[in-house]
This record gives sequence, structure tokens and C-alpha cells, in this order.
Amino acid sequence: MHRFSKKVSMTVVKRLPKYYQYLTDLQLNDIEKISSRELASLMGLTASQIRQDLNSFGGYGQQGYGYNVSELRNAIKDILGLDYEYSCIIIGAGNMGHAIANYERFRREGIILKGVFDVDPLRIGTVVGSVVVKHMDELEEFVSQNEIDVCILCVPREVGQQIANQVTSFGIQGILNFSPMDLEVPKGVEVENVNITDSLFTLTYRLKDYKISTEDNPETSDD
Amino acid sequence: MHRFSKKVSMTVVKRLPKYYQYLTDLQLNDIEKISSRELASLMGLTASQIRQDLNSFGGYGQQGYGYNVSELRNAIKDILGLDYEYSCIIIGAGNMGHAIANYERFRREGIILKGVFDVDPLRIGTVVGSVVVKHMDELEEFVSQNEIDVCILCVPREVGQQIANQVTSFGIQGILNFSPMDLEVPKGVEVENVNITDSLFTLTYRLKDYKISTEDNPETSDD
Repeated sequence: MHRFSKKVSMTVVKRLPKYYQYLTDLQLNDIEKISSRELASLMGLTASQIRQDLNSFGGYGQQGYGYNVSELRNAIKDILGLDYEYSCIIIGAGNMGHAIANYERFRREGIILKGVFDVDPLRIGTVVGSVVVKHMDELEEFVSQNEIDVCILCVPREVGQQIANQVTSFGIQGILNFSPMDLEVPKGVEVENVNITDSLFTLTYRLKDYKISTEDNPETSDD
Repeated sequence: MHRFSKKVSMTVVKRLPKYYQYLTDLQLNDIEKISSRELASLMGLTASQIRQDLNSFGGYGQQGYGYNVSELRNAIKDILGLDYEYSCIIIGAGNMGHAIANYERFRREGIILKGVFDVDPLRIGTVVGSVVVKHMDELEEFVSQNEIDVCILCVPREVGQQIANQVTSFGIQGILNFSPMDLEVPKGVEVENVNITDSLFTLTYRLKDYKISTEDNPETSDD
């Protein structure tokens, strides 16, 4: 496997999962090579953007040949850290916790669900994904015995910070945070937020002009 | 209400929901004014970044006074399009559909869930959020009778594009897309993707060095 020392910009990193998805699809369809123009057209980018992105971690294309799909996919898989397995736990066995626990894709890419935790007596002992929900009181011992890399946080906003404090004190290095808030974590701990309300508000921002045109006119006709 | 004609950059727009969240919290705590320095410290930004962001849509601060919390919150609410109500439907009554249907915050901000649709006979007729799940066959008539603005798409990847085609042909203008794929939509339709796998892979990218340091060493000691 390749090992890149060069630091890739976060803007490019954020696009890498998309490259990985498209290259995985191409590979599943037995396509062995693809030009930057074809890949660009598939992904809704420009060919020069693709060449620039891929050059930023070494350059995989050959003039007049294009990209070897499997080689490029493996390189991106490596860069994304997906050559490793990650043990994870979910905290919060509500609907979001259930949804995540049943994501086929996570398992397939080496993100292994080891435990699910909650405090609700009605949830403890039930099965989520393929795992029996445990009480939060058992978290510390569980983490120390299972070398957990990632905590997927699906708890209400009010308790998000407190639980983040707990899991980081137990040595967990990564948090995928679905609680709609910013977490303060010790240096070295990585947090990635999935803020669904923020995404919705970005959408309402873009829909506003449409609402104005359909709603303002009748309302202001008596002015 | 203010109406801004100036176009705000998408980078700033993506930060606005966060401002809105923090200003809402401040208002709930009866705080009437705040300096850019205090707001910056709360939000983990710099004071100059805050001044720059807020200047980009008109400039709400006063030298030596700071920002009026309620005025700034209302301005951002307006910019985000949240002065309007949006009627929405959820397609896909699985765990993710359930999670979204039960988001208190959506209702509070004027995103009103009008319908939930699925094709699974076991789901049709059950209650999700406060709504009875209907069959997809009823979608067209429902959309035409209820002036639906937003479709929240929580369906498997395989059927995402087909359903996007349907809902846009029925006149829906906005899609919040939880299906892990890019959708092709007619011009004028707005799509916001929430790709959870992409967020996870961005996290594994940042955790990679940690995995290398904890795993490579023991494994390579026999080289």
C-alpha cells in the first residue's frame, strides 16, 4: 500500500469519499480505466478539477491513458484510512442510533460496531444492529476491554458535552457527532459533526427566493 | 423584516445555521447584546471572522456596543428563509425516516411534516412522527393537494434517482437527500445532501495517523 506523507487540503479530503464511491461503482461494473473527462462527467466536476485533486496526492493518471480504476481506488482507500479496521460504539439507541447501526456500508468498509449504549431501561437489553444495548454504567469497562476507536454520538443536545467528556476520558480518539452542538474535546481527539438541522437550513436558504415569489405577491397586493 | 438583495457566499451561508443556533441560545438565556469577541469565543471562531461574516450581509454591530442578539438573530432567521413555513414529506419510513420525523427542532422552525410515504406494506398505516404512513401510489395526488416544498429522501441508493425524478415532476422544489448518492434534478430544484458515510470517512482520514502509530509498530517489528 502507498503511504502519503504530503498533507492534502481539507477541501480535497472532503471530496475523496465521493471519488471513492464512484470508483467503487466503476470497479463493481468491471471498468478498468477511465479518463479524467469521463470521471468528471460522471461526478459533475470538471476534468481539470479532477486532475488537480488527484495530483495533490501524487498523480495517478497517465497522459492518453487515464486512470487505472482499481489502483486509484486503492490509493484513495489508503488515504482515507480505510486500510484499517475501526471499532466503534454508538451512544444513544434511539431512531438515529438504529439507523446508523443498520448501515451496511459501515461494516463493509471496516467500521465494526462493537457496542450500543443508552440509559433508557426500555432500550437496554434490546438488539440494535447485531448488538445488545448496554447501560452507560458499563461503558468505561467496555471501552477499556475492546479498544474502541470511534464513538458515534446520537444523544440529545443537553447531554452531548458530558458524554463527550466521558468517552474521551476513556481514551476514544474519534467522535462522529449527530448531536446538534459543538463539542469541546481534548487536543488530539477528532470530531466530525453531522448537523442535519444545519443542512436543512442551508436548503431553506436556497428555497427562500422561490417562497418569496409564490407567497409574497398575493399577501402584498393590498399594500 | 429585512430583505437582503446581496448574495452571500456559500461558505458564509454554511456558517449561518451555527450563528442562528448560538444566538437562539443567547436569547433563551435573556442575553440582549454580545461583542464580536464574546461571540467568537463561544463559537470557536475569531472576532475578525465574525465581523467579516456579519458584514457580508449588511453589518449589524456597533463600535463599542457589539451586536443586539435579538436583532441579529432575526436578520439571520430572515436570510436563512426561516420567516416562511415549509411543508415537507418524508419518503422512506425506515429508521432514518423515523429519526427525522421526530426532530423537534424542525417543527419549531416552521418545517411542517405533512406526509410520510413508503412501499413496504408493513410500514403503511403505521404512525411516524404524528403522521400515518401512506403508499407511494398516493404521492402524486397528495403533493398536488398539499403544496409540498421539501422532500426528505430516506430511501436506498438503488431507488434514489427514480424517486427524485418523481417528486420533482410533481413540482417539489427542494430535496434533503439522505440517500448516499448524487441526484440529477431539473434546473431550479435545490438538493442538499447529508452523506453520513462521507462524514465517517473524513473522520477515518483524520484518525489514520493514530491507527498507524498504534497498529503498524507491533506488526512491522518482525520485518
